Amino acid sequence: VPRPSRITLAVCQYAPQVGELESNAALGSEWIGRAAAAGANLIVLPELAASGYVFASSEEAERSSQPAAGGPTLTRWIEACHRDGVWVVAGFAESTPRGRFNSAALLGPDGVVGVYRKAHLFFDEKSYFEPGEGGFPVFDLPLGRVGLLICYDVWFPEAARVLALAGADIVCIPTNWVANFRRQVLDERGWTMGNYACVAIATQNQVFVAAADRIGTERGIEFVGCSCIVGPDGWMLTGPAARSDEALLVADLDLGRAVAARQRTPRNHTLLDRRPAVYGSLSAISPAAQD
Amino acid sequence: VPRPSRITLAVCQYAPQVGELESNAALGSEWIGRAAAAGANLIVLPELAASGYVFASSEEAERSSQPAAGGPTLTRWIEACHRDGVWVVAGFAESTPRGRFNSAALLGPDGVVGVYRKAHLFFDEKSYFEPGEGGFPVFDLPLGRVGLLICYDVWFPEAARVLALAGADIVCIPTNWVANFRRQVLDERGWTMGNYACVAIATQNQVFVAAADRIGTERGIEFVGCSCIVGPDGWMLTGPAARSDEALLVADLDLGRAVAARQRTPRNHTLLDRRPAVYGSLSAISPAAQD
Repeated sequence: VPRPSRITLAVCQYAPQVGELESNAALGSEWIGRAAAAGANLIVLPELAASGYVFASSEEAERSSQPAAGGPTLTRWIEACHRDGVWVVAGFAESTPRGRFNSAALLGPDGVVGVYRKAHLFFDEKSYFEPGEGGFPVFDLPLGRVGLLICYDVWFPEAARVLALAGADIVCIPTNWVANFRRQVLDERGWTMGNYACVAIATQNQVFVAAADRIGTERGIEFVGCSCIVGPDGWMLTGPAARSDEALLVADLDLGRAVAARQRTPRNHTLLDRRPAVYGSLSAISPAAQD
Repeated sequence: VPRPSRITLAVCQYAPQVGELESNAALGSEWIGRAAAAGANLIVLPELAASGYVFASSEEAERSSQPAAGGPTLTRWIEACHRDGVWVVAGFAESTPRGRFNSAALLGPDGVVGVYRKAHLFFDEKSYFEPGEGGFPVFDLPLGRVGLLICYDVWFPEAARVLALAGADIVCIPTNWVANFRRQVLDERGWTMGNYACVAIATQNQVFVAAADRIGTERGIEFVGCSCIVGPDGWMLTGPAARSDEALLVADLDLGRAVAARQRTPRNHTLLDRRPAVYGSLSAISPAAQD
């Protein structure tokens, strides 16, 4: 099937509520409908959109989790995909026989396309989730090749690089960027550092980047909004959204631009210009000597 | 010797002239003196500051090259280091028995501390230079641990990552960022994409980043200025400088901030949180399947 060259992508910025699975499921379906009505065929919801983020206990995390296959929230969102003829990337707490993961599901009209389990856990996520061991898969959809990252992953350039080398055109990032622990949350033009990290992923890898952040505060943890969509030459296409308001960002993407951006000059191709022979083994270098 | 916690770093933005080795040497000495007078003890000059950039022939490139040990321009700049008690990072065309390299020298009061040979060659550099095979060394100076990159290297996140994992606190980047081949050179606030790449290196690796670009035009190739200094939490400290004007940017750096920035939360350390086991082998992945 030839891949369409243009798609319409949306990111949804809103506030799920921790532990409120039923209303979070309804909220997600509503945002999927709103984005589809705006013309989107690929829609990104925030990290842990099914469960909320700041758990108070392992019991609450467990109660808020579900399997990827047949989980109640994902089942409802798949129904929304079927209803609207769209694909959705959404964060959920995944329960598995091997433990809980902070996961992102790629959902389509016919069901779960795939799941990415967050590799880099942030702060108290280390109490509630296992780190993902499955690497960084790329999903070959009719509308393009989609890779997934989650939140803190964007500070690890290895992750996006693996996606780009596996052929991703679009990196979708459900996120819950946290304002706490930061000396400075926004700069004078309303960008948070996560926005710069998204630009980095785009310009270093010549991929589209779509980050859907949440807003609001849970148990003293504040989220920063600032959802955004970045083009494959690194320039911001739309956003950052505001820090505290709901937002629906929509952008028409010409996927051919991701390929074109890799041809930096007539004599340069940014992926083929890599020099793996002089990178040492980034997989083996020990950080033990670090401060 | 205990390392000082604070240093003063300067980047010098000006226009060397291709082939004019004598005047380029004088110009570099002058800028070193100017930066030292402003209080700097670590000073960065542009890429190929000794030779200029746009060669018309291999003969011109050869005439404009010099060995690292005893080369006439470097000898003069070492004299300036000795005169002013400073360290200097400067780009030069390096002649060696194994061919010419687009190199950056780290110079101090007592001579050449080390040389980095550019790993990623841009556009017509591929006609005049060999790609560096020596990897990405970090130099342990009395004033801090310094890594070097050159220009196009900043689009390859592997390079800066190797420097950070080897303990760099400061990444100095002589550059000749080119306006040609770009659909958009600057954004509405006067940033070029190289500035975003510098922010990326800083925020992904918690290092200070200092990029010294040149200005002017040589044989139809236009350079974009926009030199900058970025802090280890990713925020711009000073710059970007203007696109076409000479500029001296100076910043006081507290090197302890690079260490502190790695401790993202009480439970996170951005270098120790890496997950090499799931990165696959970034050194071995073939890009053959890419567009």
